[in-house]
Amino acid sequence: MAEEVVVQVGQGAGVLVVGGTHGNERNAPWLLEHWRDNPGALATGGLPVRLILGNPEAHACNRRYVARDLNRCFTEDLLADPDEQSPEVRRARHLLAVHGPAGREPCAVAIDLHSTTSAMGNSLVLYGRRPTDLALAAGIQGLLGLPIYLHEADLDQTGFLVEQWPCGVAIEVGPVPQGVVQAQICRQSQLALEAALAVLAAARRGGLRLPAGLTVHRHLTSLDLPRGADGSPQACIHPSRQFRDWWPLQPGDPLFLTAAGDVIRFEPQAELQPRLSQGLENPEAWSDQLVAVFINEAAYGEKGIALSLARREVWAVERAWGQALGDCAAGLAVG
Amino acid sequence: MAEEVVVQVGQGAGVLVVGGTHGNERNAPWLLEHWRDNPGALATGGLPVRLILGNPEAHACNRRYVARDLNRCFTEDLLADPDEQSPEVRRARHLLAVHGPAGREPCAVAIDLHSTTSAMGNSLVLYGRRPTDLALAAGIQGLLGLPIYLHEADLDQTGFLVEQWPCGVAIEVGPVPQGVVQAQICRQSQLALEAALAVLAAARRGGLRLPAGLTVHRHLTSLDLPRGADGSPQACIHPSRQFRDWWPLQPGDPLFLTAAGDVIRFEPQAELQPRLSQGLENPEAWSDQLVAVFINEAAYGEKGIALSLARREVWAVERAWGQALGDCAAGLAVG
Repeated sequence: MAEEVVVQVGQGAGVLVVGGTHGNERNAPWLLEHWRDNPGALATGGLPVRLILGNPEAHACNRRYVARDLNRCFTEDLLADPDEQSPEVRRARHLLAVHGPAGREPCAVAIDLHSTTSAMGNSLVLYGRRPTDLALAAGIQGLLGLPIYLHEADLDQTGFLVEQWPCGVAIEVGPVPQGVVQAQICRQSQLALEAALAVLAAARRGGLRLPAGLTVHRHLTSLDLPRGADGSPQACIHPSRQFRDWWPLQPGDPLFLTAAGDVIRFEPQAELQPRLSQGLENPEAWSDQLVAVFINEAAYGEKGIALSLARREVWAVERAWGQALGDCAAGLAVG
Repeated sequence: MAEEVVVQVGQGAGVLVVGGTHGNERNAPWLLEHWRDNPGALATGGLPVRLILGNPEAHACNRRYVARDLNRCFTEDLLADPDEQSPEVRRARHLLAVHGPAGREPCAVAIDLHSTTSAMGNSLVLYGRRPTDLALAAGIQGLLGLPIYLHEADLDQTGFLVEQWPCGVAIEVGPVPQGVVQAQICRQSQLALEAALAVLAAARRGGLRLPAGLTVHRHLTSLDLPRGADGSPQACIHPSRQFRDWWPLQPGDPLFLTAAGDVIRFEPQAELQPRLSQGLENPEAWSDQLVAVFINEAAYGEKGIALSLARREVWAVERAWGQALGDCAAGLAVG
């Protein structure tokens, strides 16, 4: 498919919509091609949308990436390192040079469309607590009720694409195998994107209405499979946990299953407790509202992640968030 | 993991059990490693089982293959071509030289463990109508009731591994994404393999009992996605057909869905009719007992296969099949 398509560009900044940041996630690129050929097929709310294939080289060979994960390349260190010339870091620099907030065709917002082998359903991923992102997510949740994974305070995973734009979220839909297009996954992705664009359009015209509360699932830590001395996995996800993303995880619940059939239960070791109780007034309450996400995502094995743990929290939506998003959206061009 | 493991070898031929013929199918290699470390964990029926990782190079990089699909490399032409030195054809020659029926450590039977992104459940694939294979499949179906895809008369796909052994079937389990181990997929794979070994053990000791009938799904043809002039797909599998492997497919049923939402129904064109009615006394009955299999298998996109069509047939089990399997199994060593 064509690498870059610009739809309805006027004066001012655009909304960057990226698909195929990972080359073996095929649903968003399928949609991008359709929207390119049929500009009326995506309800943009009148916003100037720029549809971009994230990693064309990886897409062409149907692999997550060629040399590095593009969605971990947007760190200041990597972007600034003159010795770093991998295809993905070069691509990250190119995307910023062209579509970055100070790029030649500037975008003020980035929406990154992903799919996963985990049963995440139709969901949003936020990176940190920027008021613009929180407002956008609250608006989408108000429209569709999507669950939100707040990925923050994770030193093992940094450099996500959307963090380089003043406002940005990832839309994460699954379960779907790598390399496969499924109509239902596409439908969910489009619904979430159109909700995001509707919220941005409302913010631009000063008509943003946000719900009173925002439910987030705040990242606490990630768990690897149990591994032997040689590093090889000693167990897989327990079948009662497979496909149970967003479900409560309680101490004693079956978590892994060895090939021999032995059940390994969730009994976090003491050194994990600070992570599990971070941000809590009462550390004893560490298991309250605990859920598992990204269970058995195919691409995370190499990252040593079998699942992540998050805490469900309901936050009051702050007036300042909506103001921040309004300020950001005011810079968007009329489509 | 270790490339080759020999369990319980005595005098005579062995049973070759291959996993990871495709390097991104991870469930069978996970089992192989477990059975290697725990020889009692696989019920072999006292047979000398040889556990082999099919394509170690592709397994190491978690890709289906490096240069060619190993499970299409077992053709006489490729095996004999001195100019053909791809890793997979070399691997095919090696497997035959070591474990072939006339190899250094001969095997008389091959069982190839696969997984698929299609919802095939726990199933068997036969290549052609060798009496030994039909007897083995009938015996397994008698024990577990697994559905059988009889892949025959398909000039577009040849050179399957098990065809090079006097008896051999593929065990195909799904849906599971590429690159993912799931406990339930592993459990099903082991059940099917143990049933196969139990049938072979019974055949060796002269105690084989087969059911009166064998239900097969006889391959007729494969269908590609609708494609535009530039070769790009114009539709995906219709959501009502996704995950409906083994279900009846009738003229007029929704089959594909365009990105614009247009439904493309199953209305086979005239030139397809000879394939759909092959083997029928009454060509008008071409839609009787028609089913779809391998719907939306990730690896088949590049082969131009969105799904395959097969006809459900019930055959009388022939006495000669059991005799052929008995003769084959008589050459198996005592474990």
